Amino acid sequence: MNKERLIEKLSEANVRAVARLITLIENENPLSEEILKKVWKETGKSYIIGITGPPGAGKSTIVDSLAKFLVEKGKKVGVLAVDPTSPFSGGAVLGDRLRMTGAQSSGIFIRSVASRGHLGGLAATTRLLINAVELLGNDYTIVETVGAGQGDVEIVKISDTTIVVEVPGLGDEVQAQKAGILEIGDILVVNKSDRPVSDRLARELQMMLSLGDKKDLESPIVPTTATTGEGIDELWEEIKKHQEYLGKGRFKDNRLEKLKYELENQISQKLFTKKIVEIGDKEITKTSKDILNRKIDPFTAVDNIIKE
Amino acid sequence: MNKERLIEKLSEANVRAVARLITLIENENPLSEEILKKVWKETGKSYIIGITGPPGAGKSTIVDSLAKFLVEKGKKVGVLAVDPTSPFSGGAVLGDRLRMTGAQSSGIFIRSVASRGHLGGLAATTRLLINAVELLGNDYTIVETVGAGQGDVEIVKISDTTIVVEVPGLGDEVQAQKAGILEIGDILVVNKSDRPVSDRLARELQMMLSLGDKKDLESPIVPTTATTGEGIDELWEEIKKHQEYLGKGRFKDNRLEKLKYELENQISQKLFTKKIVEIGDKEITKTSKDILNRKIDPFTAVDNIIKE
Repeated sequence: MNKERLIEKLSEANVRAVARLITLIENENPLSEEILKKVWKETGKSYIIGITGPPGAGKSTIVDSLAKFLVEKGKKVGVLAVDPTSPFSGGAVLGDRLRMTGAQSSGIFIRSVASRGHLGGLAATTRLLINAVELLGNDYTIVETVGAGQGDVEIVKISDTTIVVEVPGLGDEVQAQKAGILEIGDILVVNKSDRPVSDRLARELQMMLSLGDKKDLESPIVPTTATTGEGIDELWEEIKKHQEYLGKGRFKDNRLEKLKYELENQISQKLFTKKIVEIGDKEITKTSKDILNRKIDPFTAVDNIIKE
Repeated sequence: MNKERLIEKLSEANVRAVARLITLIENENPLSEEILKKVWKETGKSYIIGITGPPGAGKSTIVDSLAKFLVEKGKKVGVLAVDPTSPFSGGAVLGDRLRMTGAQSSGIFIRSVASRGHLGGLAATTRLLINAVELLGNDYTIVETVGAGQGDVEIVKISDTTIVVEVPGLGDEVQAQKAGILEIGDILVVNKSDRPVSDRLARELQMMLSLGDKKDLESPIVPTTATTGEGIDELWEEIKKHQEYLGKGRFKDNRLEKLKYELENQISQKLFTKKIVEIGDKEITKTSKDILNRKIDPFTAVDNIIKE
């Protein structure tokens, strides 16, 4: 498919064309930028639900159940499973592309992507991927990231509603880490709520929430058993409540704030790239050597390069 | 203490002056930059050992035991426990400043810091903190970070030898996450090796390692029981082996590569700050609104701002 044909097909909400655009974005192909420029006006129209949580919490099952639930309600849904690949392993944590077949037969567009997030961070790349999915004209885009540090904070920057999934039995020592992630959740889900210890986890989460900063809309805790679909309807009710709470005002304010943050990142990246082209990579290496050998301090070195 | 007096005291390796400089860096006080410029030539002389791992793995106990072990061998040791605070909670995970008293009486400088790492990332700030500690003339600086995503990858960027601490019994589901963190470890420690399941963990780690990319020097797995001090001598032997393996060549190459990465980050940050001062924050907000309302696409918007 050449560029013009691809743009044409995208304007027709063609699934294969969208899949192609996603691959271009994923591979950081410059063509993706050209194409997104052309179709930009058609993006930004879906409501974005972000889901994060530790590996093994059952995020994928919840996402699939929620997506099917929404399709049954007559909504058009797109799903992105974003794997923030480690700069070291480069491997995919999610990568379960088998899911595609099952979900697509229910009319859901679902795609796993391994985002390196080199340019302007994971959130910026994910935003572009969402924009690509939105060309299908979906009402909701569900974005799933594995909650292993970087990803779980980044998801807040792109979601209208953020859902944090927790699961009982990952050990008390892991709990200490949870305080941070709880604060990003508009809705908390305790999955595998058929396990005996899940009530305790729900109580612990409730307690942690009560210790945190007061929010205007308190984050509800929803118990689910994703494998049987239990609790998905309640989860949907809470998503709707949050969406209503945001209304038009808060919704727009939040999106603006996030976009501003992203724009700043992009500017920062581009300025740097431009600078490197100007001064050359050799200069950077030479200056690094001088800093290492204590011929110059890093602050003066940076100032000199900026002035050049 | 005024600036001149502080610099004077730093040149005398005064502990209180170093503590003061660390606080200045921690609070991102511009004075810290001025002072570090003056004392830059005296920094960079210690060998840096980084330790990371999940909360509850016993990192602090290992660090304390290792530091005391080195002091007994006649080495001068500084310890930094860096807490990569969440941008949301702002709270300290480590923050155990009580440790200071016990360790200081053994002649070890130990300090917990909550690094926000706003400017140029966590690694850049930690590097400056290490430089401050190095003014005490220590042979080794041990840096401890909690392995909760961001921190554990960042530590590689500042360490000469990276140690990853694992502990049995955190649940199989957490294992999936380990593959990534294993690759950053020059040495792997299985702590609480008195627990019955620790042998299984060691075997699992061995298997994961054998699946990964071959390294010139294979990462050894060291069992420890930090509370009793068992295994600390073996850990030290492995650190020495790694240090010898690096020699002068690899050691310098590694440091240069890391410094270059940091320098690039700093340049990027400063360029952006300069740009914002030039065009004003209002322009950024206005452009963000235009992007949100689909009046302009983000790529063209960024290009326009860069050209301004």
